[in-house]
Amino acid sequence: MKAPERLGDMGEDELVRRLLRGFDSGGLAVGPGDDCAVVDEGRGPLRLLKTDAIVEGVHFLPTAAASQVGWKAVARVVSDFAAMGGSARHVLVTLAVPREREWSWLAGLYRGIRRCLEKHGAVLAGGETSRLPEGAPVVISVAGEGVVPRGKCVTRSGGRVGDVIGVTGSLGGSISGRHLTFMPRVAEGARLAAGGVTAMMDLSDGLAKDLPRLAAASGCGFELVPGALPRHRGVDVAGALGDGEDYELLFTAPPRLWHALVRQWPEGLAPITAIGRLTKEGGLLEGGWDHFK
Amino acid sequence: MKAPERLGDMGEDELVRRLLRGFDSGGLAVGPGDDCAVVDEGRGPLRLLKTDAIVEGVHFLPTAAASQVGWKAVARVVSDFAAMGGSARHVLVTLAVPREREWSWLAGLYRGIRRCLEKHGAVLAGGETSRLPEGAPVVISVAGEGVVPRGKCVTRSGGRVGDVIGVTGSLGGSISGRHLTFMPRVAEGARLAAGGVTAMMDLSDGLAKDLPRLAAASGCGFELVPGALPRHRGVDVAGALGDGEDYELLFTAPPRLWHALVRQWPEGLAPITAIGRLTKEGGLLEGGWDHFK
Repeated sequence: MKAPERLGDMGEDELVRRLLRGFDSGGLAVGPGDDCAVVDEGRGPLRLLKTDAIVEGVHFLPTAAASQVGWKAVARVVSDFAAMGGSARHVLVTLAVPREREWSWLAGLYRGIRRCLEKHGAVLAGGETSRLPEGAPVVISVAGEGVVPRGKCVTRSGGRVGDVIGVTGSLGGSISGRHLTFMPRVAEGARLAAGGVTAMMDLSDGLAKDLPRLAAASGCGFELVPGALPRHRGVDVAGALGDGEDYELLFTAPPRLWHALVRQWPEGLAPITAIGRLTKEGGLLEGGWDHFK
Repeated sequence: MKAPERLGDMGEDELVRRLLRGFDSGGLAVGPGDDCAVVDEGRGPLRLLKTDAIVEGVHFLPTAAASQVGWKAVARVVSDFAAMGGSARHVLVTLAVPREREWSWLAGLYRGIRRCLEKHGAVLAGGETSRLPEGAPVVISVAGEGVVPRGKCVTRSGGRVGDVIGVTGSLGGSISGRHLTFMPRVAEGARLAAGGVTAMMDLSDGLAKDLPRLAAASGCGFELVPGALPRHRGVDVAGALGDGEDYELLFTAPPRLWHALVRQWPEGLAPITAIGRLTKEGGLLEGGWDHFK
């Protein structure tokens, strides 16, 4: 008898691919698989839909400050909107939490949620609380609805051979605290989208995992210049590639556009750095974070 | 020293009230607290937003058929849209699941999700999977986006003294299986909304819990005629009041409208039954389901 196949046996990408098999994504301008789904109602801005969850013990430690956990839960979704060139409008929060959890923890969590919403001009449109058995890890699921100007929505799939690969900010070492306190690159995403970048995504699982995804979605390979990676202090190249939870933007632009972007890049935004190029084929990286493997 | 206050010490309504304190619901036509949030963009249909979660061991047993669990997860959100007079368009599914879970279970879950979406003309717009530690209960969170025709959106708060209280279908005993297989009352909700009912909600926690919520939101009391409650076979009045998970619609209508609704009620829809009246004050019921108490 064959042993049953378990989720731990397959990677996250394979799992998602299987789960979506047979679903009709009719009517969506961009379906599941990109940072957000995109709904086009024929006029007005395009609407973005996204859901994301964080789990105690996986995405945050039980000892983390509750308000930072709340910030992170919302900021991850805001970052996904930024990765399409858009911004968040309405957010729904679902909380699954054990009965014995202290009220003060929840109050802190919601303080962080509120701070992140206010910072980004978004509104809490609803929520849901479900009890869990004692000792079960807290799960915080955040669904969001956002907008992006028509014609300015950037997906993962528009990259072309020869495009420069760029990244905002610096990479690596987020586990020391930044994974809880990061600022989603909303202004940077809007600027890059308005400037005409060809593909974009946010870096959540680490460049080593996410760059191959962007390249594959664009039907390209890639070349990376490891020495060019912008790194946080104390982070080596392996960390910049594999630590994950950077929430920086990864994007591609034709060389001429790249130079224009760099020349006109506003002070006050996170800097952008060229780290490689899209190629016809090839590109292999080790590392990065897989939720199931 | 005072003992810390825990979630188990407070009811769900009190918890939600506290969590929402201080949040700005600016821009929402209807904010958190009703079945759905309502976004009015000034033209076109109103947009509905809703999130909901089900937890293994709370909302379904580990032995439940996975496809029925998937159906239920989506149908609960569809039912919330129906309770505003609307329908679902896009759904996002977040799954938190232990690594050791078998693939075949997940495949079944998504079959049920797909069946419910197809039945209601809605589309899966995205999802997210997060791993849980071994043995933790599965959490399935579903966020949805729907529409309701402008001018036909019904909230919980429009009931008036003297209105007849009505309910669709029959109540009680859902634990025997209906809580997994129920059909959301979408056509009934649209018909009631078009007919001009003054308040509406869906019955998830049981009439004893939900009717006081609708009455309070409408600033009214209520009188209930227990003998009038439409009950499933083998269910007594206490069960019809308190079992919960009926997913029938509870609504109010001025007497003249009520009679018109009954006279013209289409065959093929779940029947409607008058069960009481909104009053100036008063109304007390025991029972119903509270997630935290």
